[in-house]
Formats: sequence, C-alpha cells, structure tokens
Amino acid sequence: MADKITSRDINYSEWYNDLVLQSGLAEYAAVRGCMVIKPHGWAIWENMKSILDKMFKDTGHVNASFPLLIPKSFLEQEEGHAEGFAKECAVVTHYRLKTDPDRKGKLIVDNESKLEEELIIRPTSETIIWNCYKNWIQSYRDLPILINQWANVMRWEMRTRLFLRTSEFHWQEGHTAHATKEEAVEETVKMLNVYADFMENYMAVPVIKGVKTINERFAGAEDTYCVEALMQDGKALQMGTSHFLGQNFAKAFDVKFLSKEGKLEFAWATSWGVSTRMMGALIMAHSDDNGLIIPPKLAPLHVVIIPIYKNEEQLKTITEKADAIMKALKAKNISVKFDDSDQNKPGWKYAEYELKGVPVRIAMGMRDIENNTVEIARRDTKEKSVVSADGVDAYIENLLNDIQQNIYNKALSYRNNNLHEVNTWDEFQIQIEKGGFISAHWDGTGETEEKIKEETKATIRCIPLDAKEESGVCVYSGKPSERRVLFARAY
Amino acid sequence: MADKITSRDINYSEWYNDLVLQSGLAEYAAVRGCMVIKPHGWAIWENMKSILDKMFKDTGHVNASFPLLIPKSFLEQEEGHAEGFAKECAVVTHYRLKTDPDRKGKLIVDNESKLEEELIIRPTSETIIWNCYKNWIQSYRDLPILINQWANVMRWEMRTRLFLRTSEFHWQEGHTAHATKEEAVEETVKMLNVYADFMENYMAVPVIKGVKTINERFAGAEDTYCVEALMQDGKALQMGTSHFLGQNFAKAFDVKFLSKEGKLEFAWATSWGVSTRMMGALIMAHSDDNGLIIPPKLAPLHVVIIPIYKNEEQLKTITEKADAIMKALKAKNISVKFDDSDQNKPGWKYAEYELKGVPVRIAMGMRDIENNTVEIARRDTKEKSVVSADGVDAYIENLLNDIQQNIYNKALSYRNNNLHEVNTWDEFQIQIEKGGFISAHWDGTGETEEKIKEETKATIRCIPLDAKEESGVCVYSGKPSERRVLFARAY
Repeated sequence: MADKITSRDINYSEWYNDLVLQSGLAEYAAVRGCMVIKPHGWAIWENMKSILDKMFKDTGHVNASFPLLIPKSFLEQEEGHAEGFAKECAVVTHYRLKTDPDRKGKLIVDNESKLEEELIIRPTSETIIWNCYKNWIQSYRDLPILINQWANVMRWEMRTRLFLRTSEFHWQEGHTAHATKEEAVEETVKMLNVYADFMENYMAVPVIKGVKTINERFAGAEDTYCVEALMQDGKALQMGTSHFLGQNFAKAFDVKFLSKEGKLEFAWATSWGVSTRMMGALIMAHSDDNGLIIPPKLAPLHVVIIPIYKNEEQLKTITEKADAIMKALKAKNISVKFDDSDQNKPGWKYAEYELKGVPVRIAMGMRDIENNTVEIARRDTKEKSVVSADGVDAYIENLLNDIQQNIYNKALSYRNNNLHEVNTWDEFQIQIEKGGFISAHWDGTGETEEKIKEETKATIRCIPLDAKEESGVCVYSGKPSERRVLFARAY
Repeated sequence: MADKITSRDINYSEWYNDLVLQSGLAEYAAVRGCMVIKPHGWAIWENMKSILDKMFKDTGHVNASFPLLIPKSFLEQEEGHAEGFAKECAVVTHYRLKTDPDRKGKLIVDNESKLEEELIIRPTSETIIWNCYKNWIQSYRDLPILINQWANVMRWEMRTRLFLRTSEFHWQEGHTAHATKEEAVEETVKMLNVYADFMENYMAVPVIKGVKTINERFAGAEDTYCVEALMQDGKALQMGTSHFLGQNFAKAFDVKFLSKEGKLEFAWATSWGVSTRMMGALIMAHSDDNGLIIPPKLAPLHVVIIPIYKNEEQLKTITEKADAIMKALKAKNISVKFDDSDQNKPGWKYAEYELKGVPVRIAMGMRDIENNTVEIARRDTKEKSVVSADGVDAYIENLLNDIQQNIYNKALSYRNNNLHEVNTWDEFQIQIEKGGFISAHWDGTGETEEKIKEETKATIRCIPLDAKEESGVCVYSGKPSERRVLFARAY
C-alpha cells in the first residue's frame, strides 16, 4: 500500500503530485523535465487516444507520421512561429559518440560528426509538414488535406509538473490544408467541437469554448480557439486548442494551388492539438483524497471483485459465483478483474483500488453466497449497497452510466458555482482570490490584459463563443466593452 | 495516375523505391535519412500495430512510455551495449536557440544553453528502462514485469532505404524482468512465436525461427532469437528479434530483488522488437509490377466498387445497388469504398487501386444491373469473374480468406523453392549468386563466418530452431559440424 496522500485542503499541488505517483500513473524520469508514463497512466491515455482517433476518422481525417527532427532553417520561415517556438527546444548538433581515449569505458561526442545544420526536436510540426504539403498540393483537386499525427514533441520547460507541463509530451496534432478561408475556419471550429464533445462526454469535464485574445494566440495563428475547464482548486486549465492559421504557413513555405477558376492561390491552414496534459485535467477535475476517480468511459478496469473468505473451500465457492458474474459482465463489454491474491487483506485491496480509481468494487463473502447477494461500492460517491446477484450485470451497466453522469454533473455544478459575473475592479480583486472563472468586461486592449495579469495573475482564458453582445465598461480601464470575457488564474 | 513503376526484373531496388513512392506509402523527409509515412502507409502500420498490440496484451503484457532522451552516461553502463549502439546516434547538446544578432530573421544555437551532460535520442531503450526498473523491483513479488512500448527511435544511418533502413523509425520494444533464468528464456521464445504467428498469419510472410550467431547478436544480449524471411529478389530480411539479456542489464543498473528464499539476486531480462521495417518486408514479399499486393488482414481498404456509367441516371441506378452491397459488406466488417468521382475514367481507377493494393475490385455497369451481376477482380491473381449480385457479400468474405491464403502459399512456395541444401564450397559459391537461403554446415567459429561473408557477402541468418542434429563438415573450413545453419545475402 502506498504512503498517505496529502489532503487537497492542505496542499492541492502536493495532493496532485502524491496522487500521480502513488496511483502508479507516472513518475519523473532520469532526464530533466521528462516523465515515465507507467502502465496504469498509459492505459488511460490509450483509451483517450482510441476514442479521439475514431472521432477524427469519423470526421474524415487520416493519420500519418512526419519526422521527429526539424532543420533549424525551417523554424526561421514563419516569423511569428519562430518567435514563439524556436527558443526553448532540444538541439541536435552531432550524430556520433566515440570512446573517450583518456577514460576507459567513457563516451564523448565525436567532434567530427558535427552537423552542417542543427536539427531541432519538434516542438510542434507546422513547419516540417507544410514543407511536405508544398509538394503534395498543386491543384484544388488535392484539397482538402485532412491529416492528423499522434506524436511525441519536446519543449524545453524550466518548471515542470507531471502531465501538466513536461519537456517531452505526447499529443496529436492535426494539420489541414484547404482551398478557401471559409472551409478552414469551419474545420477549426469543427475540431474544437470534437474536442468539447470528447471532454464532456468521455472525460466528464465540462468545458467553455472560446477564442483566445491576440496575446494568447498560437505563434503563427490568425485565430486560436480553445476549450477551458476549471480544476477543483479553482484554477483554469486550457484543455486543447484549434488554430486557424490563415495563409501564413502556405506563404512561408510557398504552397500555392491552381484554383477551380485557374488562379494560383495560397492554401489555407488549420492545426489543432490535445496532449497528455488532459491526463492532468482528468485527475484534477474529479479525484479525491483517497485516490483517482476515473470516468467509466475512460477507466482501464471497470469492476474489481474481491472475495472475502476464511479458507480454500470458501474461496472456491465464491470463485464459482464470481466467474458467472464476470462472464456476464464481459458479455456487456465491462472489464472486470477478480483479485483473489493472498498477499493482502480485503481492506488493503479496497484502498488500493480506490487509489487507482476503479469505478465499481464488488465484495463477495459467505453471507452473500447464502443470500444470493453481492456488496457493491461505487468509487465516485463511496456509497455501498447490497444487491441481488441475479441480474447484477445489468445493475452494474446502469451504475457505470450513472457514475459517468454523476461525475460530470458534479464537475459541472462546481464549475457553474465558481463562475461569477463581476462588474467592478474591487469585486474582481476579491473574487480572483477565491478562485474560479470571472466573467467581466474588458476593453479589448493587450495593454489592459497585461496589467490585469501583472496585478492579479489572472489571464483572459477566452472570449466565449456564446458570449452575447452586451454593452458595458471594462472592469479595469472603464473604457467601453461589447462583451464579457472569461478571466481566471490558470495552469 | 503515377508514373510507370520500374519492373522487378529490370531493377528490383528501383521497383521497390518506385512502388513505395507512387503507391503513396512514404517518401524521404527533408531531414537526411528520415521519412514521412503517408496516410496509406500509416494505415497499414496502424493495422499491424493493433493486431500485435492485442497479441501482446493477450500474453499478459502492458504498455508504458519511457523518455525519448537518454543521458550519455547511461549508455556507458553496459559495455557491450555501448559498443553496439552508442556510436551512431543523434546527440542533443543544447536546449535553446536565439535570434542571430548579425543576420535578421536567422536563428543560432545559444551557447549558454549547453547541457552539462549530452542527451542521446534513444536508439533502443534498455538503459533508461532498466534505470527505472531499479526502483520498481525490490522483491520477487514485483516480478515479472512485462512491459511493452510503442515508440520512435533513432540510429544515425549513412545509407538509408524507405522503411528498410531509416534514421528514425517506429517500433515496439518489449522489456521484461524475471525472477529466474528459465522464465526469461521462456519469455524470449514466447515472443518470438508471437512474432512468427503475426508474420505468417497476418502478413502472409513465411518465416524461419532461429538463433543468431555470436557475431550477429544484439549488443548486450546473451542470445538473440530471430525470424527471417525471403524477399522476391532472393535476399533475406530479418523481420524481428527477441533477446535473452541474461543479467547483464540488471548488473549494469544494479537491479536486485529479494527472492522467495530471502536471497538478493539480480533480475533476468528480455527485450524484443519489430519495426516499420516490416512494412518493407510486406511490400517486397508480395507486390508485383502493377503495384502493392496487401494481405486482406492488413489492408486498410478491402473492396472498391467502381461504377461504369454514361449518364447521371445510370449512375443513380448503379449507386442504389452498390449501396445495398456496401451495407452487406460492412455488416461483415469488410471495408468498402464506392468511387464515383468523375475526375477519372474507370481504367484509370482500376490501375490506381491496383497500385494501392486493394484486394478486391468490383465493377458495376448497366449490363450488370440488367443481369443482377457484378464483375469481381482479385488483386493477387488478377483473375476476374462475373458473379450474381445476390450473396456477393458472402462470396467476397470467402474470396478475402482465399486471397490471404493464396498470398501466403505463394510466398511459402517461393521460399521453399529457394532454400537449398549445399554441401561443398563450390556449390555454395554458385548457389549464393542465385539468391535464396542456403542450408549448410558451418564449423561454429566467428572466423569462418567472417571469411564466408567477405568472400560471398552471405551472412549466417540464423541457426534454425528446428535444425536437426546432423554430423557433417563445414562447407568452408572442412572442420566438423553438428548441424546446418542458414546462409543468405540479406537486407
């Protein structure tokens, strides 16, 4: 059994770290800022991937794979992009080690293997992909190109946190090319909606869809759409972004096509991505001081059955009954594990599976056998109930749906209770200390945005897509504003 | 439509390259030695991955993810391993670029970001994984650890060929830890058998299972098992390897555990991997001068339906009938595409789908509608037949099984016809020029192995697992030998 997890109330940040480590999701690697995603963590990520992958394919996208390394000169092509990305990245300068002639068994870099041009481990792949698209796009008939890539990327981060900010991380990056601006904008919004659908209906995390301010835009984008969620400590987390890139990358890499009308035009681009950062959001949105709470739709294991017995004969009787239940559950695509290991007591096992976030636990003892019942405990509310063993598979199928919905409802009600309309700067300063989203008027200038950030550490998370037009005055400058935007302190 | 593909007879190597490029599987990237795997190629690789992944999970393995970068000092830990791997690899020496003060818009490496210790892009992950296992393994209760990783790796190759040898490639690497030698050896062989099963029953490529000679062993292994196949040009290709690593990595990284008997012991290791190289094997084993031949079990698209029509009304009639067929096929999990694009003529489409290796083509014209028939062409033999539209789904289901089997049989018969027992050095020299495997006696010394390689470019592919004991004399040295080994020129 793991060490005690710091309580959320005492130190949320330590709670998070303890939880990730002790539930076996991930740990820090020997390489600074990188992590090892352990089997339990990777299994959740695999579930996320396979659901998203299907959603991408259902919306007409195909997968491909582009190189890990990018020539330095590619990053120089798109000015804004270089500013935003080129700076903190892993640089490959040599391609060979050799035995150190002076120290036995040691290796040194072979200076004769210096590369003519340095290579960068991709922080994102717009440049290398648009360099390919240049050869793939000649005519409007070649468009649209709807490609996604599942990949590892690297951004040299100075302050890292497991899943939330690591130097190497895993993600998917969609890169599409279109014949018209309208189509590219439509794609950008379509993928934002796919993300929101996934986050709400699978991760059980309610999100707010919006557009970033110019200050917060992706380097090289004309518009950055985003989905924002609230964590249990009242801080916001950007869950994913979808960028309308205009013709910036087509111009940088000279990607022109012959239009239907016979004119040479630059292609229109989008890119969109979500990453292992979502693992951090999943954990922080739902889990408690006892461990992980994983929505059933993403849980690697749905049900654990724990036998309570005094001797081999009792175990045999319970096992027989458990086998029948397992068979019925598996027929409903519910994954189940029977833990009859004799290394640990039932109480230890209860705690262990709570820590790991298994949504449903069944306990079966001799009294259950006599009464033809089982004891069922749900992970989200910790409620226990004794139910008939007959039809327990149908009961659990309903229960899993109920748990999925309950986890979402709980997160939604927390989010709604922590989203406040604020109309004065005094109010703003008080409210921001309490955490949560603040909906307030803003004068639309980067200057005001910067000042608010300096004074309160709050950033504009987004201009919500559903923000209604509403005349008002900026909460900071008093200048006129046409709609409210969403502020929060954020990860 | 693509350019003409060089015929296999004229230049096999050019045929391969033309085919990979024109069928849209992959192309060379802007980064030397790296490739872009295009959607059609990646879709086949995804199918391979998902089948293998299920096989690994069915044999008790779980997936995880370890860092891309490895500290240089890790490579120094295991001497043999360092010798074999550390040399040609991508070395990260800095972590920041900065704007060139002298040339506007250019970037240069920031010398202040030099790393204290260089990092290597993983050529394989034994070292970083065993550095983790050190913390994961204390007792026999922690064993076995059965972990697999799907990852990209990099080995700086000077001469590259698409899929067969590229600097960056994709693979899976299993890394297991065991309490006993017996269990580790068993695991090594088990995974070799999983590979052979996959290659024969999904890739339709017959393989010979064997053990590598000491010269050909993986750096750091005590035994390297392998699966070897024959390509259509008579050259062998190593399809995958499974290594028994003994206690070498446990000793290098000090991974000890308390045994059941209460003694501190070093753990036993295996590692095993197959890569995108299998894509090259798949292409070279089956395809022809018209394009790819993909076994149905790996084909991203099973059936294409091409309507033959003169006007919109005819197309409408054909479409209705095709819809019904598509529905029936999809119900049988057979993927199907209806290509009614008006950009190209049917003949162009026939050639295009042959090039891409779609196993079955259905053509439907007005005469088919009148007669309630469809014309079916199979890609492997190019045979055409006109069959009743009623029950065409069942017909195609059988046909796909038949194609899968036929492709395998053809490859098997080619392999068997090109595997010769040879007993004299003269014979050997003549036979090796004809291509294929040579089964011959060898004296068991690395010296003789080297000389044979120098004189004929033939290497010992493996000592087959099923090689029977048979007294003989080495084909080269005349010294005594106890069994035949398998020679070939290889990729």
